Amino acid sequence: MEYAIDFEANNAKFQKEGFPGQQPLRPSKHVAIVSCMDARLDMHKALGVAIGEANLIQNAGGRTTEALRSLVVSQQLLGTKEIHVIHHTGCGMLIFTNTELRNKIKQDLGTSAADAAGAVDFLPFPDVDQSVRDDVKFLKDSPLIMDVPIQGWVYQIEDGKIRKVD
Amino acid sequence: MEYAIDFEANNAKFQKEGFPGQQPLRPSKHVAIVSCMDARLDMHKALGVAIGEANLIQNAGGRTTEALRSLVVSQQLLGTKEIHVIHHTGCGMLIFTNTELRNKIKQDLGTSAADAAGAVDFLPFPDVDQSVRDDVKFLKDSPLIMDVPIQGWVYQIEDGKIRKVD
Repeated sequence: MEYAIDFEANNAKFQKEGFPGQQPLRPSKHVAIVSCMDARLDMHKALGVAIGEANLIQNAGGRTTEALRSLVVSQQLLGTKEIHVIHHTGCGMLIFTNTELRNKIKQDLGTSAADAAGAVDFLPFPDVDQSVRDDVKFLKDSPLIMDVPIQGWVYQIEDGKIRKVD
Repeated sequence: MEYAIDFEANNAKFQKEGFPGQQPLRPSKHVAIVSCMDARLDMHKALGVAIGEANLIQNAGGRTTEALRSLVVSQQLLGTKEIHVIHHTGCGMLIFTNTELRNKIKQDLGTSAADAAGAVDFLPFPDVDQSVRDDVKFLKDSPLIMDVPIQGWVYQIEDGKIRKVD
């Protein structure tokens, strides 16, 4: 099977030229980042994060409700002491509703998929600054998250710039 | 507030030297990757993935049960046509049980956190090859996932090498 990206060839090059040697399990900068799976984001590059420094959690939208399990592991087992929540302009989560996506799934994948999709909240949002505020608040209100600094950000896909959300 | 990594200074440099210009929403290589939040992983570097090419989902362990929502969005809205599941040696998920983590949370965060943690499966696993197989099978069996190639991998934190899991 040939895949779209030749991971094995690229990885052989990485082993020779990019691998920094074995690092400790615990992030050296004690940082946890929650961001989006979007193909246009490379948070290591965009934020200047080196291998070994930070836990990087990514999902569709960068939603913290879904990242909660990972953040608890990050704090309790891996010792992270600050959290950054980074959503972005032009996010796919801005352009659909649960109903629209469920209808598409029913059309493409049939009835059993539609039944399964009915139980899933795909977590779309209409406003990226507000989604950052909501997701920071969710963490601040959660009894499972330690009392640490939590900062919200928006990454601009137009120019690669980050800006804080208060 | 000063944070452990100076995101704004690093990002200013990225805008000048690293930002490749605005890219389309849909991943140009039609690839979705599920991997771990571990600080030692930089999947863009380790796999040779450029900005714009692939959706990158990351959580504690790289568990596909939790990534399902994101993968459906990736396939249905963003047009990805292959999935790669990449767990790694030395994973934090190998070194605890739900009971141990819940006990630690009760001790550190108190009773209301302990109650909340009782409802969370933190998804630890005892064997990394088996967890990859389990997580690939979960996707292959899911009615919500399209019939596309799904490949499992292990990334070795000791030397940066990836290997396929059959």
